[in-house]
Order: sequence, then C-alpha cells, then structure tokens
Amino acid sequence: MERLPGFRDFYPEPIPHTDVWSADARQFIFEKWRTVARRYNFREYDGPPLESLELFTTKSGEEIAGQLYNFTDKGDRAVALRPEMTPTLARMIAAHERNYKKPIKWFAIPQLFRYERQQKGRLREHFQFNADLIGETSPAADAELIALLIDALRAFGLTEKDFVIRLSSRNAWQEFYESRKQKAESGNDAYAFYQVIDKLERTPPEESEKKLAALGFSLAEVNQFIESGKQTAELESILQNLAARGLKDFVKVDYKVIRGLAYYTGVVFEAFDVQSEFRAIAGGGRYDNLVKLLSGGKVDLPALGFGMGDVVLLELLKTRGRLPKFDTTTDIFVLIEDESLRAQSLKLIHDLRAGGFAVEYPLTPAKPDKQFKRAQELKVAYTVRLENSDYVRIRDFKTRKEIVAGANDVANHLDSNRQ
Amino acid sequence: MERLPGFRDFYPEPIPHTDVWSADARQFIFEKWRTVARRYNFREYDGPPLESLELFTTKSGEEIAGQLYNFTDKGDRAVALRPEMTPTLARMIAAHERNYKKPIKWFAIPQLFRYERQQKGRLREHFQFNADLIGETSPAADAELIALLIDALRAFGLTEKDFVIRLSSRNAWQEFYESRKQKAESGNDAYAFYQVIDKLERTPPEESEKKLAALGFSLAEVNQFIESGKQTAELESILQNLAARGLKDFVKVDYKVIRGLAYYTGVVFEAFDVQSEFRAIAGGGRYDNLVKLLSGGKVDLPALGFGMGDVVLLELLKTRGRLPKFDTTTDIFVLIEDESLRAQSLKLIHDLRAGGFAVEYPLTPAKPDKQFKRAQELKVAYTVRLENSDYVRIRDFKTRKEIVAGANDVANHLDSNRQ
Repeated sequence: MERLPGFRDFYPEPIPHTDVWSADARQFIFEKWRTVARRYNFREYDGPPLESLELFTTKSGEEIAGQLYNFTDKGDRAVALRPEMTPTLARMIAAHERNYKKPIKWFAIPQLFRYERQQKGRLREHFQFNADLIGETSPAADAELIALLIDALRAFGLTEKDFVIRLSSRNAWQEFYESRKQKAESGNDAYAFYQVIDKLERTPPEESEKKLAALGFSLAEVNQFIESGKQTAELESILQNLAARGLKDFVKVDYKVIRGLAYYTGVVFEAFDVQSEFRAIAGGGRYDNLVKLLSGGKVDLPALGFGMGDVVLLELLKTRGRLPKFDTTTDIFVLIEDESLRAQSLKLIHDLRAGGFAVEYPLTPAKPDKQFKRAQELKVAYTVRLENSDYVRIRDFKTRKEIVAGANDVANHLDSNRQ
Repeated sequence: MERLPGFRDFYPEPIPHTDVWSADARQFIFEKWRTVARRYNFREYDGPPLESLELFTTKSGEEIAGQLYNFTDKGDRAVALRPEMTPTLARMIAAHERNYKKPIKWFAIPQLFRYERQQKGRLREHFQFNADLIGETSPAADAELIALLIDALRAFGLTEKDFVIRLSSRNAWQEFYESRKQKAESGNDAYAFYQVIDKLERTPPEESEKKLAALGFSLAEVNQFIESGKQTAELESILQNLAARGLKDFVKVDYKVIRGLAYYTGVVFEAFDVQSEFRAIAGGGRYDNLVKLLSGGKVDLPALGFGMGDVVLLELLKTRGRLPKFDTTTDIFVLIEDESLRAQSLKLIHDLRAGGFAVEYPLTPAKPDKQFKRAQELKVAYTVRLENSDYVRIRDFKTRKEIVAGANDVANHLDSNRQ
C-alpha cells in the first residue's frame, strides 16, 4: 500500500540515494522556529486540523472549496482540513480574547492541506510557522513581526546575502487603485486588480497589459507606480524601527509585492531568496478586518501575521549548505560480552539513561566484534563494558582512551556535554 | 463560528475558570515523551494524517470505516484520517526497511482521529506517543519496550504508587482457547472470544457468562484461568529483565488484560492508574504478523509497540498534582520611559534576544507604572531600562536589587540560568 500523492513520510536519519524526507530535518526546523518565537515572547497555540468548511469559505469565498480537502462528516457537517491557520486563530481569539492582554503575540506550527492538481514536486500538505500579533495598530507591531521573521531565518545561519524581505503597502496600492479606476466601471474590482499585480512577475507583459486594460489600467502606469517606490509614513516608520535593531539590510520596499489574498489591509511583505531561485519563503501582512469578519462582528481587533512553510525553506537550506548532518545522537553503547553480566549490565544501562544519556546495547547475545561495529555505526561517544560486578571499562571514541572505573561511578567519567 | 465537537483548541497559558486545553501542558507532555524515547535510543518518525482507507480496513476489517473520518477525495481516492499509527509505520517500514539495521526502534507523536458517537468528555482526536520495536523476536525486546513505557510515565513524577503495567500473554490465552474450544464449533472465533475477555471488567457477569456460553466456554473456567496467573517462559523472561533494571514493582501479570484488537500475537500489556479511576493510560503488545499483512507479504518482520494517549495522561497528572504551573517564560521586560531612547532600546532588545533571552517591551509609548505592572504580570526575572545612551538600570525581581551597568554589558549581569 502506498501513501497518498502529495503527502510525505518523515524518516529518521538521512537515507542515502533516496528522496525520502527527514524527520530530523523537520525537527531541526521546528526547534529553530520555536526558539526564536519564544525570544520574541510569542506563545505557542494550536487548533484542530479539521474545521467547519464555513470557517474557510467565509474568509475566502465559496471558490476556495475547490482547492480543499473537504467532505461531509458522519454527523452531516461540511468540514475541511485546514488550508491555512488564520481563520482558526481568529476563531480562537474571538472566543477568549478577554483573557489575554493586548497585544497578543502567538505562534503555531500547523500542518496545512490543499487539494491542488498534482504537479512535479508540488505537495498537498506542508508545515507552516505562523506568527501573529493581535490588538495593535501601530507600525511598531509590523516592525516587531518582520523582525521576528528576519531573525527566524537568521537562526538557520542565513544572512542578508541569502534572503531579503520585500516590503509593500496594500494601502498605497489601494490609493493608487481608487484614484485611477474608471469612474464608469461598476462595482469595486480591487481584488481582481490585486490578483493581476500579484502575478505580474510570473506573467508575460502582453498578458498583464490585456488584463489591466480590462480593469481600466495601463501596464505603463502600474510599472511607473512600482518604480516610484512610494515611501508612505507607515513604511518609513517600519524601516526606521528595523534599522534601530540593525536589520536594515534585510528589507527593501518593493511594490511588486501585493499578496493575492483579498483580506490584507495595510503593510504586506514576502521573504525571498536573494537569487530568486525559489518561490517565496514566507509572506504576510496586516488583516485588520478579518477577526471581526470571522467572529461575526463579535470581536473587532487589528491584526497582522506571517506564514513560513517548511518546504521552500528546506530547499533553500539544502542549497546553501545550512542543514547540519543528522547523525544519530546515541551517547553510549554498552557492550555485553559476558552474558553472566547481562542483568547487571541492564541495571547499568537503566542508571545511565536515568542520568540523561542516550544508551544502546545488544538486545540479544552477540559477538564482541559485531557489537563494536554497531557502536561505530551509531557514532557513539563512548562504549562502556562491565569487567565484573564492580568495575567497568570506558572507551572514549574520540580520544581512544580507555579507563577503568567503579560500576556505580560511570556517569562522573563521561563528558558532561553529552548529558 | 464554532470548532467541531470532539476537537480541541490549545491556548497558551492556563485560562482560569474555563475548560480550555493548555498548549503549554501539551508541549510539556510531548517534551517528556521525546526526552525519554531518545534516552532509550528510539528515533522519531512521522507519516501523513491522511492515508488510503484501505490501509486501515486491511488491518482491521471493513467495519472500522464506520468509526473513521473517511471520505472520497477530489481524485476519487477513498481516504481516511488516521485512527492509529501502526498501519502507517508498517507501510513506512515495508518501503525502506533495508536502509535500517535491526532492531529498528522508532517513536512518533501523531494526532489520531476517530468518528465516535459524541459522549460527554469523549474526544474525536487525541495525540498518542507511539513507540515500536521492529525486527526482534526475543522477549528482551518486549522488556526494553515496557521499560520505556514505565520510564515515560516516571518522567512525569509518577511512581509505582500511581500506576502499574498489567502484563498478559495473548499466546497463553490462545492456547487456552484452542485447548478448550468445542470441536463441533465451525471456524475459528478466537477474535470474538478475545473481545469478551477484553470487556470482562466492564460487563455484568451474567452478560459475559451468556456470551462465553455462546462460544462454548463457561465464565468459571475463564475466571479460573485468569486467577491461575500462568507464568509462561516468555513472561518470566520479561519480568526478570525488568527486575534487573529495578522496575519490578511497576509490573504485574494480569490475564484480565487481553487487548481487543485481532492482530496481537504475543505479550500484551496495559498501563493503569493504581486506583483504577481512569481508562487505560497506555496499551500495547506484539504484532508479529502485521508488517507482513500490511506490506502485502513483501516484508516479514516481528514487531511490538505501545500507544499512550495525551488525554487520560493529562487527567491523571492533574489529579496527582504532577503538572507544573505554566507561567510565562519571559526573562526580561525592557522599560522604555524616555521615548528619545526608543531606537537605542530596540537595539538593546534585539541584542538581548540574540543572546538567548525572551524579551518583552512596550510596542507603543506607555506610562511607567503601566509598563512596570505589565512586567509584574509577565513574572519576568528582570526589568532593564536605558538610563541614557551609555548606561542601563537592571532590576532583579527576585532579590529586588538594582544595579547600573554599561549598555553593551547587560547580558553579563543577568543570571545565566535564564539563558
């Protein structure tokens, strides 16, 4: 039986010459995300991977259902695997916001699901680092969140030579749109306009020209606006704040970024690798009206957030040589060469594990050279072998030194760094 | 919009007077599980939460579909949210077992889903610590796995006064069944028999009597077998192994345990709280034929494993007072009383975070007493305030001592334990 297309298994240890995903790499990425989020005083939350379909269609329109894993459950509820975390966050905030001081700074690492037409290398699930800041309108909040995004990437050893945050303003774009749209046009088609801008870089100019013309715009005036790089007071304030933190070189204003989604209301941004080899590493922005919308008007709080997926990040880290080797982390292999000492060896193993060491040993009788080979494969720091009831022989694999120690005194002879 | 019944939101910090679930408690439990598993040299893996329905029906029969979140995806595949991890594990092992030395020792912390009729307090999802040992038939493997289960519970401060592992043998039960079943009975109804035994403790005797009679057994002979506590060579070997580790007091042979599932082939066990207030904390056993079944005969490896859910464990830890207080872990609050020092304060904040401290500060101008109050609420270890460009005032909240230090020298004056 096979796993579903677009889904991943995560295996321990890298398996050479295969394209399997590494559980160790995943854990490495999650831990970095968590560590940096906590330093910024963001607190972890989570919600269910399955939600009412309505939660997502309210935010994104009925069309979204075409891209979801949605179905009717046995209780006749229309449900869907979450394609994004923001609706769940807004629902949770709406239910309990009174218990939390503002601004609320939360993060999560949800697995997200989208039923997209299968393409080479395109997945139907990924994990996403989500950080959101709720209850603060000041651009100081935008700066705090963008600083977190920058430091989350720097935590992997990436520098300003590897990535850049392209900062833009949905406000400025909206002003541009409002000031130039044909008065004759019926309805507000700002969303369609944003969609065209969002795809500008990936679309042939003639095609963009045509689409813009249909909305009453010319590609020339759009390009002129992008090149002007209009510095709004809001963007100015964010850039100054980031400069004060020493993060100036990680950001540039770039109006080619607009974010396709309908609900952004202020600053928007995306993180890209400098060489533009990959899709966006992360993206986010302000969504001041969304909590109100999703809480049915019950709670009205300004908010902003970003999401960073694990797939593009992992590709980038691999390309830049920023993934550590995930060797096994076994500290000690206890050799059992004399079976009459097995019971006492089990006691020793248990004590060492209780002391914090990761310990392996032969479950069943095995030849000494086979045991030694296994210890080598595991790249252990030490082998420990009971000589008799009272003494052990400890071998340090790095220094190749061997010492004899009391059987109850082993831990004191081992490098405490490994504990 | 509400979350689906039977699903949980996990909020940061405990919210008093509510029954919301704590993301901090969840993280606390996951970390203990991980730590102990690693000491036992188990490696973490994970698979997709969505799998082919067939993966689960092959193992458990078509009936299982009635209890699953299953549906047809947009590519016409019959799929289901995983109700357990073992089929995924077997699938993963079958695909790549040649890359791993035996025995394979793996663990995972999957979220599992079951569509059960809604009952008070009964959930439709939970997280489960799964540990499995694959490729070893010796009872030494059973002992290693049970020792891990015991130490995983002890890691929470639980002792032999809190929980016990009830150890039984599906082999011994099968022998009992085979030796006494009516020759006249057609077919092998061992599964139905195991089901009755599994429910013995929760079923009125008359009812069990009736069900057993239908299978050709009397309750008296069953009870006699249970009371005999037959010590097989296999159980003997496991008990001796655990005794050598100093874990004798955590295990007892108890034939009332049989595990309902069809596929167990050897030793089975369950962890219970000593006072039997709760449902089983964990359960597992040998399933030597399952990898072969689920790999379509491709791979044949003996295996055993256990699962421990987060819900019963959390109830138990709460009742026994074994959950720590989940105070916020903010180390430092940087006071900004003079707005002309904000830019320099941002630099200081960024440096402290880069140094590993969790730092909070007022995003926008705020009165000094309001800032101080917020620092108190966050239970920070220190407040730090720039006096001018060159000096900071550090206040230790425990000792109430205040010192003045150089602005570039703050970290050296803070308790390194907090880093």
